Amino acid sequence: MIIDELYERVKKNGAVCVGLDTDRSYIPSSLKSECNTVSEEIFFFNKKIIDYTKDIAACYKLQIAYYEMCGLEGMKAYRDTLLYLKKEKLISIADVKRGDIGKTMDAYAKAHFSGDFEVDFITVNPYMGFDTLEPFFPYLKSGKKGVFVLLKTSNPGSSDIEAQDLGDRKVFDIVGDKLSETGEMFMGECGYSSLGAVVGATYPEELGVFRKKYPKMFFLVPGYGAQGAGADEVKLAFNSGNGAVINNSRGIITAYKDSGEEFFDAARNAVLKMNKDISATL
Amino acid sequence: MIIDELYERVKKNGAVCVGLDTDRSYIPSSLKSECNTVSEEIFFFNKKIIDYTKDIAACYKLQIAYYEMCGLEGMKAYRDTLLYLKKEKLISIADVKRGDIGKTMDAYAKAHFSGDFEVDFITVNPYMGFDTLEPFFPYLKSGKKGVFVLLKTSNPGSSDIEAQDLGDRKVFDIVGDKLSETGEMFMGECGYSSLGAVVGATYPEELGVFRKKYPKMFFLVPGYGAQGAGADEVKLAFNSGNGAVINNSRGIITAYKDSGEEFFDAARNAVLKMNKDISATL
Repeated sequence: MIIDELYERVKKNGAVCVGLDTDRSYIPSSLKSECNTVSEEIFFFNKKIIDYTKDIAACYKLQIAYYEMCGLEGMKAYRDTLLYLKKEKLISIADVKRGDIGKTMDAYAKAHFSGDFEVDFITVNPYMGFDTLEPFFPYLKSGKKGVFVLLKTSNPGSSDIEAQDLGDRKVFDIVGDKLSETGEMFMGECGYSSLGAVVGATYPEELGVFRKKYPKMFFLVPGYGAQGAGADEVKLAFNSGNGAVINNSRGIITAYKDSGEEFFDAARNAVLKMNKDISATL
Repeated sequence: MIIDELYERVKKNGAVCVGLDTDRSYIPSSLKSECNTVSEEIFFFNKKIIDYTKDIAACYKLQIAYYEMCGLEGMKAYRDTLLYLKKEKLISIADVKRGDIGKTMDAYAKAHFSGDFEVDFITVNPYMGFDTLEPFFPYLKSGKKGVFVLLKTSNPGSSDIEAQDLGDRKVFDIVGDKLSETGEMFMGECGYSSLGAVVGATYPEELGVFRKKYPKMFFLVPGYGAQGAGADEVKLAFNSGNGAVINNSRGIITAYKDSGEEFFDAARNAVLKMNKDISATL
């Protein structure tokens, strides 16, 4: 199952998820000058980052907003990057945070689990209710695909709705309990379910509570680096060094702006340092 | 302001929002045989529907899932349809239900309010909190763009989180109260704000309560037709015949499958009938 592959990758390469949130302003002008189109600029940048990190990263996450922002050219770079990850047998996560009625979620499942934009995992927003997750069940059941549902996000506003108090529990507890129960249907041999959760590292106390409460849930953890969390926070996401991937985007793909190295060397060094920092706390 | 234009369009043409949720299985084979590419099929289908309904519809809503499902070809049809709506000076809504951290929402705002995928209104998911709405404020303030935030959706699962009881109020009351307060910053001359809400017609009692509680909020109302609601339900969305648009997709774009007419004639007749049914209840 795909969750077993992700587990093995974390064991072998460490828990870093390289965030390819490729804003065009991040691309060095030297690379831009070698390209004929916007989609080439973005794809060649991503490809270099991938080539220089693939042996030390767990997986790659593409935030689709940055690609949509460049219109059709951006979507072409999105497709080409996903194709390249597939060709290299690397694990891909589409950070699309989709959430809609069942019939539309069927279309989203087809959109992101087949065809041009096929990935291994997608992120999903549970706000519209648990019936919206059902169209993904056949894909999860097949073992080939996985889903990370928003449980507690890394932004300050996550208290507005996600953390609302319902008396005996909070809104995120409803989501977590449902995911934990439903996830039992999609368990991998590694002990984790292909139905995972997004839990921000910027609220470490909650992260620790979720880790204990949901031992079989794999976590996708944003918030490391630019958003403020470090190794001391993200260590709470792990069970014996596995069960989570830690996303970092700007801290990796724009590392060259501080270090003065080539962007791909700086990206590699940033991943190596992140792996070292995380290992040291575990 | 764009909300004033929408108000005028409802006054002139009625409140029907034509949902261009164009699944390829909806496209007649006679049309397909005239096309060379998937994007042509989808675009020519949409164009005909638009041409035959533009004088009797308030606006057009594209559910992006159906376009993503066809990969780059689908996104090309999406872009071409939006360009055509713009050329014809018609009002467009992108049903994208985006929700993410501030920096990513900045990218989504650029993606959907400029460039290839530019529209007049987008839908937004508020689950991650109210800070996620802020990147849209400059666009709302300019008067040129509008946003519909999910308040209460039309699917059965909308009770799971949106309608959770917080003791003195429900989750959707937090969203509605915040939108109502924030919306004051973006008022049009018509008396409605450019910050509107999505409220499903399948829960008419709640729709009626929202209408009274939030008199200045413009509603985008899904749930008519295939999802089960009719004119008796959607009448509760209006203030004196305005302040809402009623979306119908399958009931319009696949009407030809029941009627035996050409798909564009059937679509026109479905919109005419819907306008008549809604008018009769107001």
